[in-house]
Amino acid sequence: MKVLAILYKGGSAAKEEPRLLGTVENQLGIREWLESQGHEYVVSDSKEGPDSDFQKHIVDAEVLITTPFHPGYLTAELFEKAKKLKICITAGVGSDHIDLNSAVKNGVQVLEVSGSNVVSVAEHVVMSILLLVRNFVPAHEVIERGDWQVSDVARNAFDLEGKVVGTIGAGRIGYRVLQRLLPFDCKELIYYDYAPLPEAAAKTVNARRVEDLKDFVSQCDVVTVNCPLHEGTRGLVNADLLKHFKKGAWLVNTARGAICDKDAVAAAIKSGQINGYAGDVWNVQPAPKDHSWRTMKNPLGGGNGMVPHYSGTTLDAQARYARGTKSILENYLTSKAQEPQNVIVGVGKYETKAYGQR
Amino acid sequence: MKVLAILYKGGSAAKEEPRLLGTVENQLGIREWLESQGHEYVVSDSKEGPDSDFQKHIVDAEVLITTPFHPGYLTAELFEKAKKLKICITAGVGSDHIDLNSAVKNGVQVLEVSGSNVVSVAEHVVMSILLLVRNFVPAHEVIERGDWQVSDVARNAFDLEGKVVGTIGAGRIGYRVLQRLLPFDCKELIYYDYAPLPEAAAKTVNARRVEDLKDFVSQCDVVTVNCPLHEGTRGLVNADLLKHFKKGAWLVNTARGAICDKDAVAAAIKSGQINGYAGDVWNVQPAPKDHSWRTMKNPLGGGNGMVPHYSGTTLDAQARYARGTKSILENYLTSKAQEPQNVIVGVGKYETKAYGQR
Repeated sequence: MKVLAILYKGGSAAKEEPRLLGTVENQLGIREWLESQGHEYVVSDSKEGPDSDFQKHIVDAEVLITTPFHPGYLTAELFEKAKKLKICITAGVGSDHIDLNSAVKNGVQVLEVSGSNVVSVAEHVVMSILLLVRNFVPAHEVIERGDWQVSDVARNAFDLEGKVVGTIGAGRIGYRVLQRLLPFDCKELIYYDYAPLPEAAAKTVNARRVEDLKDFVSQCDVVTVNCPLHEGTRGLVNADLLKHFKKGAWLVNTARGAICDKDAVAAAIKSGQINGYAGDVWNVQPAPKDHSWRTMKNPLGGGNGMVPHYSGTTLDAQARYARGTKSILENYLTSKAQEPQNVIVGVGKYETKAYGQR
Repeated sequence: MKVLAILYKGGSAAKEEPRLLGTVENQLGIREWLESQGHEYVVSDSKEGPDSDFQKHIVDAEVLITTPFHPGYLTAELFEKAKKLKICITAGVGSDHIDLNSAVKNGVQVLEVSGSNVVSVAEHVVMSILLLVRNFVPAHEVIERGDWQVSDVARNAFDLEGKVVGTIGAGRIGYRVLQRLLPFDCKELIYYDYAPLPEAAAKTVNARRVEDLKDFVSQCDVVTVNCPLHEGTRGLVNADLLKHFKKGAWLVNTARGAICDKDAVAAAIKSGQINGYAGDVWNVQPAPKDHSWRTMKNPLGGGNGMVPHYSGTTLDAQARYARGTKSILENYLTSKAQEPQNVIVGVGKYETKAYGQR
């Protein structure tokens, strides 16, 4: 059996830090175990174009392991070539880089390590909200360049207390964000989701559901995106929706870059319609050098809190998703049932509504 | 009556943003009110040396208003010249820039706007903890310079979940930090303080007191400093104490710069004994251009989350402390009793234990 893993490159960092498990070098820590059972294990970060290792090995791989951080995009076209493929495992959370309809059609299972990094991402969201609202990046830059203009920083720094924060998506991550925001004494916590939270859960985080998206964003000082990417959420935050945001609101997206329209967000920051944007996800990854989200700034020169896609791949998260990936593989190899919350696509059918199935 | 206020300069920012109340330009919004009562109101940012407005006007001012952000240092020597001074008002929290023993001796009251920015600072602490633990600054720098090395960032990025966080000081700010950390599922929250928290309060935040400081820091993954600066806390975090920190712990200080030894902190970051340091307070303010805390980095090139002193001067906080300053002044002018929590030094005696009085 051939197992193909597309991971990100670790370089010298991975050699020096063995806890960087999710890298090409450290291979999720499962090479020895797989080879001892006679399996072939191919690991690479080469993923674009017909000469990439991804496209070369996908033709006879039975198992494909990918991550959201350096996604191997398994398109409908590539599915046609993947004649032996039986199971796709996402080491992490979010399988939008896999064409799920093709997976269903071809009888290929898709699983992810569902709980592995939801806390990591939720923490990144709260951090990002705080650093936008409190104007951290321009403040740090003042120090780095040897200056001390308190007023230039303070003029666009606020407290989170007393603000309205809303999450698009109140699932595993969105709910954890609400939990963590609770003691900040926000004016209100609200959420937009296709399904209401169970009553007890909503009460625990004291969050109100708003059913209309435009109505929802118009009430928020901070909007955070915590829903999966699928046909129904691609470009959800576009130029039209951004007009309905409160002038000067902040937007945080650690879900998937393509949920927000790249050019519309950059224009909204530039005009000051939104005061800042932060997150770690990009419409293409790695992001091109000239991607506008790298350098976009509000009229006061701040409001950019972008980072590469790493919120779910802290060293703590890597330990969890490496362990989870091995566990899914073990179940597959020994024909044991998978944990239900990990199954996105079973053999020939969706097992979740999270990717837009109603 | 002459009222002298030493505030920070706002420049064009203050002209464009009237909510920057705490600036020389916007004068805490009390000029009209003071002058309508026949008082003289002198406002300046010039505060160093014998030719400064501070030293020129302190000789006949009855009221002195200062802030912690651009502190007018009222030394014992200057007290001798301030023959007419009756009351010092700190617009904000923290009156360590006033020689309190001299205030007692000379019968000068010292008041601060005690609740005005404790939430602002507590939020800044939580933000700083998250951005150090999650390695935000190096991640943002990767994006700014057009790169995409997830592994270089992830190798030193962790989750706050499962870590031990300890606060030196569990007063108005430290307690609010503990409250906000509670849902992050830290391994444990601990505190070091001269007095134990009331039982119910300790239970609310599920925090354990550790009585010995070296023992305390040796248990922490993250240490946050939230105590006032006085003779007993100056240099508290010094080279000796830093040796007792867990290797690779993070340190956040938004209290006062001089509580941490400048050179010892810089050396501990450089060696990797501590993994990062963040905060907005400096031993001298404005910090000199070549202050080592501007540029200190851990062996991996990160771990610096410094900003100028602004955490307590967000626009939300400025509204509160401007209002509070006016209220203290009103009480003074009309001989009404001051709110007890605002009084640091009453006429001839300390009214708080917060500045080291036992």
